[in-house]
Amino acid sequence: MLDGAECRRLLGTASVGRIAFTEGAMPTIQPASYALRGDDVVIPTGLGSKMAAGSRGAVLAFEVDEYDLVERTGWSVTVIGPSRLVIDPGQVAALDALGVHPWLPTTTHGYIALHMTVVSGRRITSP
Amino acid sequence: MLDGAECRRLLGTASVGRIAFTEGAMPTIQPASYALRGDDVVIPTGLGSKMAAGSRGAVLAFEVDEYDLVERTGWSVTVIGPSRLVIDPGQVAALDALGVHPWLPTTTHGYIALHMTVVSGRRITSP
Repeated sequence: MLDGAECRRLLGTASVGRIAFTEGAMPTIQPASYALRGDDVVIPTGLGSKMAAGSRGAVLAFEVDEYDLVERTGWSVTVIGPSRLVIDPGQVAALDALGVHPWLPTTTHGYIALHMTVVSGRRITSP
Repeated sequence: MLDGAECRRLLGTASVGRIAFTEGAMPTIQPASYALRGDDVVIPTGLGSKMAAGSRGAVLAFEVDEYDLVERTGWSVTVIGPSRLVIDPGQVAALDALGVHPWLPTTTHGYIALHMTVVSGRRITSP
């Protein structure tokens, strides 16, 4: 298991993760680009997207990893916490300055802000 | 959106994805190595793992993707369906023949078999 500081550091080294949310009472996962801002993971998403609909206020899981298929080594960090949807134009513009593009191209976007409440991670060393 | 045949083909081109399950009433995500066997995604996991505990019989989501950070192109396929935990030694031995190692090294393992009930995917082309 990795400590919180190492998890946070690793989260800062990547730019695409995966988010789990609920769609029609079913779990689903999608890739998501992201940035860190304070204690939030911020994820751009289309305003009419299923991700935006599924994440509004819900407790979400977000995961980032790296894996070397040949060496069978890598790491994974998972963040769990309450989310909010940022749609206020001023706040969206402020987050746009982070330079993160939505994974799915979209004409109008907001952000999911996931508060990093529970952060855990592990490193896989060669067997 | 990708059709079912293309989703299935893409699932066959990778060997690590991410699985969403519930742990203590909270959603979580972990990387998972996998193989396809008939209409199941089979995922080796430690018998005492949180993944095994969280997936027993539940409807799960499993996702595989590829993304080119420079070109901003890629694809993602998500599988949703009911799962079962395979622990019978004969069945485990049969699945071991697929040659898939658990993402997290473990001394004793079984398999999560996720029946591919809903399969969806999309391709991201350059903006």
